[in-house]
Amino acid sequence: MHGRPIKIRGEALPYPAVCAPLVARGADALVEECKTVAAKKPDLIEWRVDFFDAIGDARATVETALRIKAAANGLPLLFTRRNAREGGEPIALAEEQVVDIYRAVCANGAADMIDFEMNNDPTHVAAVRDYARASKMPLVLSFHDFEGTPMVDDIVAMFKHAHTLGADIAKIAVMPQSNDDVFALLAATSRASRELPIPLVSMAMGAIGAVTRGNGWLFGSAMTFAVGASSSAPGQMPIEDVRAAIAANRRKQ
Amino acid sequence: MHGRPIKIRGEALPYPAVCAPLVARGADALVEECKTVAAKKPDLIEWRVDFFDAIGDARATVETALRIKAAANGLPLLFTRRNAREGGEPIALAEEQVVDIYRAVCANGAADMIDFEMNNDPTHVAAVRDYARASKMPLVLSFHDFEGTPMVDDIVAMFKHAHTLGADIAKIAVMPQSNDDVFALLAATSRASRELPIPLVSMAMGAIGAVTRGNGWLFGSAMTFAVGASSSAPGQMPIEDVRAAIAANRRKQ
Repeated sequence: MHGRPIKIRGEALPYPAVCAPLVARGADALVEECKTVAAKKPDLIEWRVDFFDAIGDARATVETALRIKAAANGLPLLFTRRNAREGGEPIALAEEQVVDIYRAVCANGAADMIDFEMNNDPTHVAAVRDYARASKMPLVLSFHDFEGTPMVDDIVAMFKHAHTLGADIAKIAVMPQSNDDVFALLAATSRASRELPIPLVSMAMGAIGAVTRGNGWLFGSAMTFAVGASSSAPGQMPIEDVRAAIAANRRKQ
Repeated sequence: MHGRPIKIRGEALPYPAVCAPLVARGADALVEECKTVAAKKPDLIEWRVDFFDAIGDARATVETALRIKAAANGLPLLFTRRNAREGGEPIALAEEQVVDIYRAVCANGAADMIDFEMNNDPTHVAAVRDYARASKMPLVLSFHDFEGTPMVDDIVAMFKHAHTLGADIAKIAVMPQSNDDVFALLAATSRASRELPIPLVSMAMGAIGAVTRGNGWLFGSAMTFAVGASSSAPGQMPIEDVRAAIAANRRKQ
């Protein structure tokens, strides 16, 4: 196969791993959402903490992450504050506060893997990388283009940039305007997967890109996002649909 | 890029090369078809000699190939007898006679590249390979599945088998039943292109596979077949449409 599985504490997730996001705004609602989502048996759960109404409170954030983990039925938890510039919910925090939340989550073992945008301030990226390493949590460095699809060379270069910055996993999401863009994303993922030693994650968003949700793994994408309770990005399909698409081509492996 | 360009006498064809087939049945009609097709500026022309009404006459075949070459306005000529088992026209010749036609075409320099099925009798494959080498014509060893799409591993294995048999270029065409099959073909091409040192050619045929005609090069396919005057396989698009599809993603390179 093309791709490398994501490993958490030395243990490989299924390839590809199906990740379901949590997007509730309150702590209790998140715990309920987590139970609902976990029952649909994704391979891991992502808390999109930019949706959280108490994100300004680092202690509440850590406590809620721990409650989510407890409700996740043993599934690993990916902790993600998605920057509003890259499709996340707008939040009222300075980036230094965000970095401090990552520090607290890592220090308290309140997640199993974290995601941070590779284009954030380099000192913030380096700080989050250090927190992740100190807590032995894999770090996803990500890039999201909600407007279009970069050129193949540029997508490959961004995967490599994430690796250079110390990513354990590099993730790129694009918004295709045509099938050509979908193929560009897949070709770039395939090329980067043979030129980099780390697991990659990629997807083309929206309806045009939906084919990548179940087929990207054939080109080296180690994780796909699917809906347990609510979608966190355009084009995500229900977990069961993504699993069916994966299985269809698993037969072909 | 993923792929390697096809080279003829040391000179690289454009990557990807657009190849237009000739399928007329008579010698004069072939010369006319060749002029019409050459005017549409493909990168090379394929004579599908299984359509030729005088294929039983090796001398007439060589003479017609030379007339086609003269009418091709300098474009290289790919000489192909497509086996009826793999989608070609049924012909009344024994395989030994077919091999002898290849010998005569090579010995007389009546083509620039030849295509032979990798699953033909191994002694015939070896003979055609030797004729090609002696005349310095690149040899395409090909496989066509008009019923379905093999598993990714099996497609990769077939590319490798062609290389083992001495192919200068390995070609595989499949018939997808779903998008999953299209992605399987592309993923296999991409994987084989990094594991083999020779140019590869692949396509998913039919309407479902038509996306591969203009995008397969992103995954390592060095040649695509397009219609100058007449189609030779399902899913081929007009030369101008394929060039437009290639250009759309060339921008993305």
